[in-house]
Amino acid sequence: MVFEEIKASRQSFARRGRLYTFHGIVETPVFMPVGTQATVKSLTPEDLISCGAQIILGNTYHLYLRPGHRLIESLGGLHSFMGWSGPILTDSGGFQVFSLSPLRKIREEGAIFRSHIDGSLHELTPELAIEVQESLGADIMMCLDTCIPYPSSFQDTQKATDLTERWAKRCLDARKRDELLLFAIAQGGMYPELRRHSIQGLLKMGFDGYALGGLSVGEPKELLLKIIEDSRPLIPSRFPVYVMGVGTPEDIVECVYRGIDMFDCVMPTRNARNGMLFTSFGRIVIKNARFARDEGPIDPNCNCYVCNRFSRAYLRHLFIAKELLAYRLNTYHNLYYYLNLMKDIRNAIERDEFEVFRKNFYMKREGT
Amino acid sequence: MVFEEIKASRQSFARRGRLYTFHGIVETPVFMPVGTQATVKSLTPEDLISCGAQIILGNTYHLYLRPGHRLIESLGGLHSFMGWSGPILTDSGGFQVFSLSPLRKIREEGAIFRSHIDGSLHELTPELAIEVQESLGADIMMCLDTCIPYPSSFQDTQKATDLTERWAKRCLDARKRDELLLFAIAQGGMYPELRRHSIQGLLKMGFDGYALGGLSVGEPKELLLKIIEDSRPLIPSRFPVYVMGVGTPEDIVECVYRGIDMFDCVMPTRNARNGMLFTSFGRIVIKNARFARDEGPIDPNCNCYVCNRFSRAYLRHLFIAKELLAYRLNTYHNLYYYLNLMKDIRNAIERDEFEVFRKNFYMKREGT
Repeated sequence: MVFEEIKASRQSFARRGRLYTFHGIVETPVFMPVGTQATVKSLTPEDLISCGAQIILGNTYHLYLRPGHRLIESLGGLHSFMGWSGPILTDSGGFQVFSLSPLRKIREEGAIFRSHIDGSLHELTPELAIEVQESLGADIMMCLDTCIPYPSSFQDTQKATDLTERWAKRCLDARKRDELLLFAIAQGGMYPELRRHSIQGLLKMGFDGYALGGLSVGEPKELLLKIIEDSRPLIPSRFPVYVMGVGTPEDIVECVYRGIDMFDCVMPTRNARNGMLFTSFGRIVIKNARFARDEGPIDPNCNCYVCNRFSRAYLRHLFIAKELLAYRLNTYHNLYYYLNLMKDIRNAIERDEFEVFRKNFYMKREGT
Repeated sequence: MVFEEIKASRQSFARRGRLYTFHGIVETPVFMPVGTQATVKSLTPEDLISCGAQIILGNTYHLYLRPGHRLIESLGGLHSFMGWSGPILTDSGGFQVFSLSPLRKIREEGAIFRSHIDGSLHELTPELAIEVQESLGADIMMCLDTCIPYPSSFQDTQKATDLTERWAKRCLDARKRDELLLFAIAQGGMYPELRRHSIQGLLKMGFDGYALGGLSVGEPKELLLKIIEDSRPLIPSRFPVYVMGVGTPEDIVECVYRGIDMFDCVMPTRNARNGMLFTSFGRIVIKNARFARDEGPIDPNCNCYVCNRFSRAYLRHLFIAKELLAYRLNTYHNLYYYLNLMKDIRNAIERDEFEVFRKNFYMKREGT
């Protein structure tokens, strides 16, 4: 068994679940911190555990280019390389080819791209995506998909969606390590019938879980939620469902409400490095002058190491002075905020109080 | 009592001591990590403790300019601001005026300089140096001294040395908080008779400790050690003696041998950020290609968190990928190396085996 639904909310699609991986059990709904280059920026594995991380995400594109999946494999795989003994999900690299590479050509065989590091030419095929992820030893591998911009025409979206389906089949065929889970990515852009077609095609092939891809690419939030409302019920409850690259705390609450189990996003970590901090009453920009003499913690309702230990005045000073410790402490706090939010969400679902939780979540933000 | 010599080596001037400060006892010989802007770059106070730090150094020049000593004072002082509850020594700001400011004019009253941050004009006087350090609440304050380049003429050196003495008197007179120790800085450049004159003048005024300043400014190592050999015996053993800005592990061993008690240097922290790591067998440059697949720790003889946890291959990857974690882990290791070296030095002196220790220290380095 890969996934178990242990409690379903009575008033929404929100649900508590458990995902069984080679490196341990993941309690869902879950947020996965992004560890692009075999590190969640500025943090150690111990920090991640004390923040409440259960599973982290690694980026196939980055690790394939540097230091190389063969090197990581020869050193015992990604877990051993980076010192993280919990589960790891790796993406397929498709999104980075789409967003980072200066040259990119999609053909039936795969995605041709130039390295953003040294300009060298590569072709990412479904088979290579699986080879890299198996070398890394990811507990959850993702099929290579084709990403399209928003907005795209029906015809372009259909072409990309069909190719994604053929690539998914090739990923399934290329897979050698059965102990590593393989998730498919449904595409279909903003067209409900293409989404339906994509999900149904992938379900027939039989994957361990399903992701809704091609979201959070600039579409209005209402559209994102509409797609999820339409698509989610098409996936049987015995599968974990993952929305890639989502999102803000509000997005996560809304997606959980609509039945999503898994999330990842660079927002808590990247925004931390830009001085934007998440709190129970909304976001704050730490460099703001009003924090210069503020002896209080980032968030009085937060119980993280940073909030227990340092003042806003100190964090503002570190950020303005461009001190390395600023990025580290901000990252720690933001990840703690996200992971604690997920814990609160899970607790609320267990007590069948997710609706109340959701209402309070918005009320706290409005109150300030 | 400020300082107590608890064991003197029989074969050298090396000695074990104890320095009593408002925030606790410091076992000497001691190395003080440099926390320029109210942070030892990339590390938390807990990291510093687990590295073995007893006392850290803060920079008056930097903290005066940003965030300002009055702001830090209003937030309870530097200890509270940065969350470090152990002793803190602050320098006087003189060296940074000398090395960082684009404009600088020394007159009887003080040192006129422009901020390296915003170009604003300031005058650092002995009275201001003490005011700032008392606002910060430094356990050990340093007198404002005048720094001269190497080489300087006898006449220039004499002028600077005499002015340093008059400034020291003004620092003493300006001091209000008796619980904070005040150390004088002897100048005299590379001229033994000026050094002698400087030390004798300062001793007459009565400070809590004495530093040998104006060293490690580009002079040959033999000259540095010669100055220390000549100057150190002029200071009675009831005072702690501090050589500012020194140095390499080898320099520290040689200075301890010549009776020095206290050290600070940016080398372990700055070099860490440049990928240069200290080991028991010498230095390594982590980005070197030969470490690409090296599963071993930085130093098999090191017991620090980083060496217990991560491979050279991983640290090389982090450094090449310019990951924030690289700077943090490298800094942690290098500081641990320095602080553990000091512990080994103290243990050796206690057992009256410092001579053996010194010999082994060099042999280990030659063996590789």
